[in-house]
Amino acid sequence: MTEIELICKKAKAAAPRLATIGAAIKNSALMAMADAFEASRAAIFEANKIDLAAAEANGISGAMLKRLELTDKKIDQMADGVRQIAQLPDPVGETIEGYLRPNGMEVRRVRVPLGVIGIIYESRPNVTADAAALCLKSGNAVILRGGSEAINSNLAIAKIINDAITPIGVPEGAIQIIETTDRAAARELMTMKPYIDCLIPRGGKGLIQTVVQNSTIPVIEHGDGNCHVYVDGAADLKMAEEIAFNAKVQNPSVCNAAETLLVSEHIADRFLPVICKRLADAGVEIRADEKARAIVPGLKEATDDDWATEFLDLIYALKVVSGIDEAIEHIGKYGTKHTEAIVTEDYTAARRFTSEVDAAAVFVNVSTRFTDGYEFGKGAEMGISTQKLHARGPMGVEEMTTYKYVVTGSGQLRG
Amino acid sequence: MTEIELICKKAKAAAPRLATIGAAIKNSALMAMADAFEASRAAIFEANKIDLAAAEANGISGAMLKRLELTDKKIDQMADGVRQIAQLPDPVGETIEGYLRPNGMEVRRVRVPLGVIGIIYESRPNVTADAAALCLKSGNAVILRGGSEAINSNLAIAKIINDAITPIGVPEGAIQIIETTDRAAARELMTMKPYIDCLIPRGGKGLIQTVVQNSTIPVIEHGDGNCHVYVDGAADLKMAEEIAFNAKVQNPSVCNAAETLLVSEHIADRFLPVICKRLADAGVEIRADEKARAIVPGLKEATDDDWATEFLDLIYALKVVSGIDEAIEHIGKYGTKHTEAIVTEDYTAARRFTSEVDAAAVFVNVSTRFTDGYEFGKGAEMGISTQKLHARGPMGVEEMTTYKYVVTGSGQLRG
Repeated sequence: MTEIELICKKAKAAAPRLATIGAAIKNSALMAMADAFEASRAAIFEANKIDLAAAEANGISGAMLKRLELTDKKIDQMADGVRQIAQLPDPVGETIEGYLRPNGMEVRRVRVPLGVIGIIYESRPNVTADAAALCLKSGNAVILRGGSEAINSNLAIAKIINDAITPIGVPEGAIQIIETTDRAAARELMTMKPYIDCLIPRGGKGLIQTVVQNSTIPVIEHGDGNCHVYVDGAADLKMAEEIAFNAKVQNPSVCNAAETLLVSEHIADRFLPVICKRLADAGVEIRADEKARAIVPGLKEATDDDWATEFLDLIYALKVVSGIDEAIEHIGKYGTKHTEAIVTEDYTAARRFTSEVDAAAVFVNVSTRFTDGYEFGKGAEMGISTQKLHARGPMGVEEMTTYKYVVTGSGQLRG
Repeated sequence: MTEIELICKKAKAAAPRLATIGAAIKNSALMAMADAFEASRAAIFEANKIDLAAAEANGISGAMLKRLELTDKKIDQMADGVRQIAQLPDPVGETIEGYLRPNGMEVRRVRVPLGVIGIIYESRPNVTADAAALCLKSGNAVILRGGSEAINSNLAIAKIINDAITPIGVPEGAIQIIETTDRAAARELMTMKPYIDCLIPRGGKGLIQTVVQNSTIPVIEHGDGNCHVYVDGAADLKMAEEIAFNAKVQNPSVCNAAETLLVSEHIADRFLPVICKRLADAGVEIRADEKARAIVPGLKEATDDDWATEFLDLIYALKVVSGIDEAIEHIGKYGTKHTEAIVTEDYTAARRFTSEVDAAAVFVNVSTRFTDGYEFGKGAEMGISTQKLHARGPMGVEEMTTYKYVVTGSGQLRG
């Protein structure tokens, strides 16, 4: 039996016990986990230093090094995040619907954990803590497979977690991490369908594509966010300026930041000079189509690739469109079904946009930056799902569950 | 561009229009479809005869020929089924949840169609009608890919459908069938991820495995039903006899029929002689473990394979277990997470069984045969999902939808 198979078997054995362990133990374990992160900073930093040294030796760049580095602040955030997860309502056991059939059978649909979740992720070692906590809260066993670049940090965090939660009564095998970092181990994990109920890749496009192509286990994709803000001809232009600016500048490196600004030609003359100056002052590079460049001279020319790119940076593609039809068409062609926003005071335009744009989240007069578990009032999340099956948008603890039909009767037979 | 790509593009173009077409047009189209089946019997029989002749020439067996054959009664059922689907509530547009955030944003989660559904199926040509109707009702475009053995029947039915629904205003491309029956076309379909949101295989194990292995599109599996009836030591033995008998005999060829009968050793002496005689009288072959054969001499010996087999026939595996622990363990090892039933008057046994057994449906004192969209009061279904992501149990029109977050505000920015 391989290491992967052994881990899978252990997880599958732990899953039924985790499903019925109850909220009290799960929440105590989460609080203990948070305390342990704070108490074990030294051990985490020591392991993290090894990863950082290896990364530097491999010539890894600044942004990636930064994601890899664990600081006091990041450990505080890890602990706080886990405490917040402990405080969420327990999703397990909820009766989603229940009714009586004419033949006297009582049918209930009851929320239960998925079972075993596999998570394949890159770079940021704090994902180890987040993912472990979300899976424990939702009653799932988890198998973590982090990237080689963070392996020492990940193993240290996983050890701290297990040392903290085992004495509280969480079954062995609930939270496991794969020590082998070669690709073959990841590939093997993707075929462990008899043991794993759901696979979640967290990382770049390449990682997600590899998992989708090779997994026989159902996958939940957290894809790119090529999000748009469309400023309609009937927009409140001051509001549009604030939303267009906030959606790009407040945090350009996240999936719900806007990447392309679409502007109706009816207000482009008035709106573009104002927004372009404001963006330029904030250091945003604008890549604009011909019509926009005719209104604001000196803007960089947009290529076709720019419409399809998730910049995750202070770069904004800008296009003047004839109106809502062209905006919806452009979003349909280039959007990634994440978050799309319209700014308008026109009732019919707002109604058409929310109805016709196909995305996890469609917004009217709100910054794209709000697509987030906390901002939606649902708490911590595994990520934003851009697929349509199972979960769409923020994937929190509730989305990490399924249901079973519980039917009770008094001897009903099928006639 | 290949035939498959062309079909996919057409479906994707039709999807947004189907999503907003409204219940009135969809239901009129469904009624027209049902009328057309009844009015076009001659054309259906003619096409079906070609398939039947080819099947006989290929030496295809009795049961499969029967599934392939379309009779007057089957066409009546097709038409009735479609009319029933027309009468279901429209799932599209429902606000699943809605609330106001402290910052004034209104968040609504609204039910929308999945988009484009691909269905790969075998043998029974009436699936063409069922699947087309369910997809239309749920606002999805559908691409149908039936087996070569039924291709003439399938094409005839698809033509009748499109001739009936196009004049009513259903967009072209809403219901399409792939004419090419070679494997390469099916394989190509499984990689059309940019166009298809969900793939549903309907057929035998081989077909489902091929789709799971090769698809990059999310798949909803309708797996085997290796269902169990466990007769507990505290069962009402008369009720247990009726349920054990009904679960096997009422229709042995369907996925929610029971395949293994587990009997507590505490009542085996009294129960087995009665149930075995009743089953034998109905022509059921019993394959029993050693303990059962010691109580009822002359029973055939069960092999290990029998515990894992979905017989879909008048064959019942029979095992005496020490009690609920062994029953739950046996089901965990051999069950396919479809439907599992306990017969008991013991409160704690009932509670443990429904909590600890991991299946789409867990029943107390009810025949396994009730896992079905109609029996659950939800109407027609695509099948019974045995996976945990997205839909579990009966997959009706509601389960053929997803949701989008619609957020409306007044200029909210992320701080």
